[in-house]
Amino acid sequence: MKISTVKGTNDYLPKEAALRDYLMDQILKTYQSCGFQRIMTPVIEDIENLDKSEGGENLNLIFKILKRGDKLEKALEAKDEKELSDMGLRYDLTLPLSRYYASNKDKLLAPFKCIQIDRVYRAERPQKGRLREFYQCDIDIIGTTSLTAEVELIITTAQALKNIGIGEFKIKINNRKLLKAILTTAGFAAEELDSVCISIDKLDKIGLDGVKNELAGKGYAATSIEKLAEVLSTKPFTLSKAAEICPEEESLKEIQFILDSVKAVNSELEIDYDITLIRGQGYYTGTVFEVESTKFRGAIAGGGRYDNLIGKFLNDSVPAVGFSIGFERIFGILTDIGYQIPDRKQQLAVIYDEKDFLAAMETAKNFRETYNVALYVKPKKTGKFIDRLEEQGYDGFFIYGQSEEVQLIGNK
Amino acid sequence: MKISTVKGTNDYLPKEAALRDYLMDQILKTYQSCGFQRIMTPVIEDIENLDKSEGGENLNLIFKILKRGDKLEKALEAKDEKELSDMGLRYDLTLPLSRYYASNKDKLLAPFKCIQIDRVYRAERPQKGRLREFYQCDIDIIGTTSLTAEVELIITTAQALKNIGIGEFKIKINNRKLLKAILTTAGFAAEELDSVCISIDKLDKIGLDGVKNELAGKGYAATSIEKLAEVLSTKPFTLSKAAEICPEEESLKEIQFILDSVKAVNSELEIDYDITLIRGQGYYTGTVFEVESTKFRGAIAGGGRYDNLIGKFLNDSVPAVGFSIGFERIFGILTDIGYQIPDRKQQLAVIYDEKDFLAAMETAKNFRETYNVALYVKPKKTGKFIDRLEEQGYDGFFIYGQSEEVQLIGNK
Repeated sequence: MKISTVKGTNDYLPKEAALRDYLMDQILKTYQSCGFQRIMTPVIEDIENLDKSEGGENLNLIFKILKRGDKLEKALEAKDEKELSDMGLRYDLTLPLSRYYASNKDKLLAPFKCIQIDRVYRAERPQKGRLREFYQCDIDIIGTTSLTAEVELIITTAQALKNIGIGEFKIKINNRKLLKAILTTAGFAAEELDSVCISIDKLDKIGLDGVKNELAGKGYAATSIEKLAEVLSTKPFTLSKAAEICPEEESLKEIQFILDSVKAVNSELEIDYDITLIRGQGYYTGTVFEVESTKFRGAIAGGGRYDNLIGKFLNDSVPAVGFSIGFERIFGILTDIGYQIPDRKQQLAVIYDEKDFLAAMETAKNFRETYNVALYVKPKKTGKFIDRLEEQGYDGFFIYGQSEEVQLIGNK
Repeated sequence: MKISTVKGTNDYLPKEAALRDYLMDQILKTYQSCGFQRIMTPVIEDIENLDKSEGGENLNLIFKILKRGDKLEKALEAKDEKELSDMGLRYDLTLPLSRYYASNKDKLLAPFKCIQIDRVYRAERPQKGRLREFYQCDIDIIGTTSLTAEVELIITTAQALKNIGIGEFKIKINNRKLLKAILTTAGFAAEELDSVCISIDKLDKIGLDGVKNELAGKGYAATSIEKLAEVLSTKPFTLSKAAEICPEEESLKEIQFILDSVKAVNSELEIDYDITLIRGQGYYTGTVFEVESTKFRGAIAGGGRYDNLIGKFLNDSVPAVGFSIGFERIFGILTDIGYQIPDRKQQLAVIYDEKDFLAAMETAKNFRETYNVALYVKPKKTGKFIDRLEEQGYDGFFIYGQSEEVQLIGNK
């Protein structure tokens, strides 16, 4: 039998699991303190819902679940790949949330402010930092077009990141409508915009020349590409520069409102407009945002407004906006810097001779008012065992019939 | 698009999710206080590991994940059902734990006392109370044959059940070795024992005559069936009755030790030997146990010793014993009786006019020292909205620019 986990998934040792628990708990408590309510949805979704969900490239990464019994035999006869599966593992928490809201909206407050902290699955090519099973920590506000929703999400997410001690970060925001207005003014046709965005999204990786070459390769007009290149090479490309290009665009005011409000609520936050911020998902319709750690590469949180997704389930328009903390990135960073959980309950080992089991149980019970207490039979080499305890994060031990008081171990 | 969850899975409303979180947290904290350490393993496992795992009838209930790309095409060509899948969703937490231990044992304390609280999947026929996605809350002790492990698991599980306020319960224990000795004495052959156990397991449902008929139908000797029937109809069938049948059997002492020790540690616990307790899994080798609620039907926790499972991964003998709380059963019972979470953080709504957003954010911030605070724009019908808040579990509200202090709502 194979003892390793399947590709792209992880086992977590006790210390790692404790850190993951602590981080999820801190994030949950911060979200709750800001008035969001946790909901829970299944990992498994109907395959048709997943397929129609505008998840962009994630749709190619869905793990599908095989049908069973007669249905499977029938599908095998037809040799039709699509018929083999009726369910799949969710690739994000937004599609399940949309289905959930459509199904339960009469039982929920409006607007609905909710939390999801849970697993998602993507059949990514395994590589460093890309997991196939991972956690997301999402907050969403459903049922309002008010930009105060964006502001609340940003303030709450920033507070959660602060509470878990991830260090300095900055927030970038953009708006799909403004970006499209700028691209349209540059001369790109409506049907070209999504493809242009995909190229812009690679700016970090392939540079400005790379983006230009890619767009030329796609056959777009040289004049449009040049105008776009000019925009992308303007540093900083501020909101006023954007206003010079398309002064009538309504979304300029939206971005300004969000920037002003966030700063008014929390003047310590660094937040800026960034024309190069794309965010991959096809379902975003307005504001998009992302949080970048100052010290560590890459995004640690991201999200945006998706006003059309939930409507698909309801044949109605339901505005919504969400922000997701990239839990695995946060966990990775804190693990790398040797982060210690503050104020955790101390762990004690009560060590005993097998014959003293019942008495040791009684002793352990008394210590449990103060400590988490584990019982261990006295091993042959006590010293070595105590080293193991220290390594495993124990704070002290008590040898039954020998110790007079708890002996602390220099755990750090 | 479909708005319901896939068959056998559930969405949870905010109040339900809060109860689930609370229960899992209470169980986790109790387990930790008794010296167990949480670990985390993936939901997805290698299909070969799952198939070879001696999970009994659960092996027929595995959700399999479809291969992708070239591998899938090849499998489709071969029309071989077994080739279509290389991974599956775990049907319990014991198989992943065994793989985990085999993979990580050098980094773990010995014996290893661990917690798993997580989702498992079974393609059960949907019916009331049978979910296809559900949580289990397991503790296991790996690496010792000492029966003190059984005692610790029973004491800890009972403490967790007490801490979540499930009401009265009783613990039943049996031992596979003793049961087999009794059956052997009755005249059943070694290769018949598993099948006889499967029939005994149905005693609750089909009665003694049902069991007898089933065994007769399987073609077993009438004299053996009669002797078994005599045992099963002896009430109570005590440990001393068992000793009369096979006085030399070692496992008699094992059961006695566990009964005596549990009562010595916690005299309030009700624990008894029960010859009819089977527990389905094929991998149990010695002690099996189960907790039954006095008031509500069915088992709320169960487990046993499985000394051969982990060895399969290590080509070595690794004794182990585990106890699992049936989380969904507990959640169902507490939901049915309208259980209220004790001492939860109070929830407050700050209601404001859109124009006062920034000031309302400031007000909310101040209240967050005491409450979880959500912001809501003042709706047209404030009274109706406050009714909704109450229904959703809010404890109070504050109307910005109008309220002088928090107004409590009679939430219960």
